[in-house]
Amino acid sequence: MSEARIIDGKAFAAKLREQVAADVQALKVEHGVTPGLAVVLVGDDAASQVYVRNKGEQTLAAGMHSETHRLPADVSQDDLLALVGKLNADPSIHGVLVQFPVPDHLKQSDIVAAISPDKDVDGLTVTNAGRLASGLPALTPCTPLGCMMLLKDALGDLRGKSAVVIGRSNLMGKPMAQMLLAADCTVTIAHSRSQDLPGIVRQADIVVAAVGRAEMVKADWIKPGAVVIDVGISRFPSRDPVAAAAGKTRLVGDVAFDEVKAVAGAITPVPGGVGPMTIACLLANTVTAAKRLNGIGA
Amino acid sequence: MSEARIIDGKAFAAKLREQVAADVQALKVEHGVTPGLAVVLVGDDAASQVYVRNKGEQTLAAGMHSETHRLPADVSQDDLLALVGKLNADPSIHGVLVQFPVPDHLKQSDIVAAISPDKDVDGLTVTNAGRLASGLPALTPCTPLGCMMLLKDALGDLRGKSAVVIGRSNLMGKPMAQMLLAADCTVTIAHSRSQDLPGIVRQADIVVAAVGRAEMVKADWIKPGAVVIDVGISRFPSRDPVAAAAGKTRLVGDVAFDEVKAVAGAITPVPGGVGPMTIACLLANTVTAAKRLNGIGA
Ligand SMILES: NC(=O)c1ccc[n+]([C@@H]2O[C@H](COP(=O)([O-])OP(=O)(O)OC[C@H]3O[C@@H](n4cnc5c(N)ncnc54)[C@H](OP(=O)(O)O)[C@@H]3O)[C@@H](O)[C@H]2O)c1
Ligand SMILES: NC(=O)c1ccc[n+]([C@@H]2O[C@H](COP(=O)([O-])OP(=O)(O)OC[C@H]3O[C@@H](n4cnc5c(N)ncnc54)[C@H](OP(=O)(O)O)[C@@H]3O)[C@@H](O)[C@H]2O)c1
Repeated sequence: MSEARIIDGKAFAAKLREQVAADVQALKVEHGVTPGLAVVLVGDDAASQVYVRNKGEQTLAAGMHSETHRLPADVSQDDLLALVGKLNADPSIHGVLVQFPVPDHLKQSDIVAAISPDKDVDGLTVTNAGRLASGLPALTPCTPLGCMMLLKDALGDLRGKSAVVIGRSNLMGKPMAQMLLAADCTVTIAHSRSQDLPGIVRQADIVVAAVGRAEMVKADWIKPGAVVIDVGISRFPSRDPVAAAAGKTRLVGDVAFDEVKAVAGAITPVPGGVGPMTIACLLANTVTAAKRLNGIGA
Repeated sequence: MSEARIIDGKAFAAKLREQVAADVQALKVEHGVTPGLAVVLVGDDAASQVYVRNKGEQTLAAGMHSETHRLPADVSQDDLLALVGKLNADPSIHGVLVQFPVPDHLKQSDIVAAISPDKDVDGLTVTNAGRLASGLPALTPCTPLGCMMLLKDALGDLRGKSAVVIGRSNLMGKPMAQMLLAADCTVTIAHSRSQDLPGIVRQADIVVAAVGRAEMVKADWIKPGAVVIDVGISRFPSRDPVAAAAGKTRLVGDVAFDEVKAVAGAITPVPGGVGPMTIACLLANTVTAAKRLNGIGA
């Protein structure tokens, strides 16, 4: 039996960013519109700092307008909501994103609810969840959108394929299931209460694992030839003791990669699979939002 | 092997209406609140007239306030939306329902969008679809809500059961899947593009058929002991030729009842299964809306 094709998310994301940059260029030239993304960062969480910097850099690299608003960790909910309101009203901004988590005194659900659904490039608002569930044009969460792109690239038409999504979070599992359904898959959603998870997964032509349990999905769970998308990220100390002592970590997915790749038809690695797609899809969503806000045909 | 228990939706709906009437009585006595349902009927479609009359009668029978607004078939969209706006603002009204279908010159999606999500007792708005999908308190479509009640009554705890929903409409299949997921089932959504539907259905402890194809689901699709909920309604001329000549029809479900009841553990008949639950759940939703609008703990 041949080994699975390794799906190169890093290369795909690079291509997607090029496509976004070309779209941005066309929007500027043909419509005088420069898509703009505003990111709001509260406090000084180290990981969030890195994410926000990456987002800003990639936004600029795509030729877009980028703003980062840094607020102190003790900012009041009112001040934060006032900033969101200002960005909602700002015609140069098409995407508004508040980097989560925020400090405990702030209420994440109220912050999300304050973001204009038309600028909600993280796809987190109730309105966008409802639009997605109702089959209407929506801004959707970036990671499942990236998974869909990788799946369509790997498989072409998804119609009639059986897909199992493990995990049912609002950010990942549920929108993933909706998108697979919209692509005419038969979709099964599994979670921590599911019985005989291996048996369920073994039915699937497409497996999306979004759990956060390192190497949970084993080779004997996978139907030979299935496409496996590994969203999970667990962080462990580096295997190199010197690096580990220096705080270096390694990322491990939900899928036991080495054994599963002997059975699957195609598989995303961790890192270098789904991960790089997320920011690229954030840029793509911002372009989508800019088009819709300016009434330019998607 | 013993025959399936026949789930008596008619009796269950009668009990539910009694419960609603008791809740209404308590709301009046303890809070001075009388739940009110306004139904808007456009034109004179014969079937819609019957539905609307039934809704009005059952609303009154539960001790609630009932209003029916009859508009001419050529009413303008603006006038219809103005009425919806008035009902949204009317503190004596807690549920607003426009009977569909409406004449072709009116746009159903815009009408639904005009209904306040907090009074959307049919659960059709994007906001309620999003709330349901996000695990927030929602008003949900009445028919799947009724199916859930019958399932919980038949099975007790649904946790970990595998459920297959056939059909993915916004009104029925999709919210049904969300509710089963919220009850911790492993949920599969199948539809017209699904391959090997019999094989998919055969995995399920719970089967909900919401398709509209008479007797599509056969005995050999069903895992012995599974609970089968038949939502489908197809209408045929009465078997009695005299009655048929007089226009009498008979209703047929999506499930081949006579053969499936020999395999299933429990099954809803058509008629007398899911059907009677819909209006009873509409009343229940109106009480829920009245409580939430008045800040009375659900
Ligand atoms: N850019 C990226 O690559 C990216 C983006 C987002 C997320 N992620 C990663 O993806 C993973 C999932 O993220 P999330 O936000 O969806 O996480 P989450 O909110 O914690 O959800 C995890 C889901 O996994 C389910 N689950 C937990 N244990 C399970 C088990 N033993 N068997 C089956 N299901 C189980 C949970 O079920 P219950 O609902 O029953 O509790 C829950 O639905 C995380 O590792 C996260 O770091 C990566
Ligand atoms: N009070 C009640 O008892 C009540 C209330 C509501 C509905 N109903 C009845 O329930 C049925 C469904 O209603 P609805 O509004 O959901 O109907 P709908 O909007 O027509 O949806 C039907 C669904 O069935 C799927 N389907 C069609 N042919 C199929 C096939 N051969 N195999 C598998 N799936 C197939 C369709 O798939 P695609 O999406 O791929 O086209 C679609 O998702 C109807 O008979 C309706 O009268 C009864």
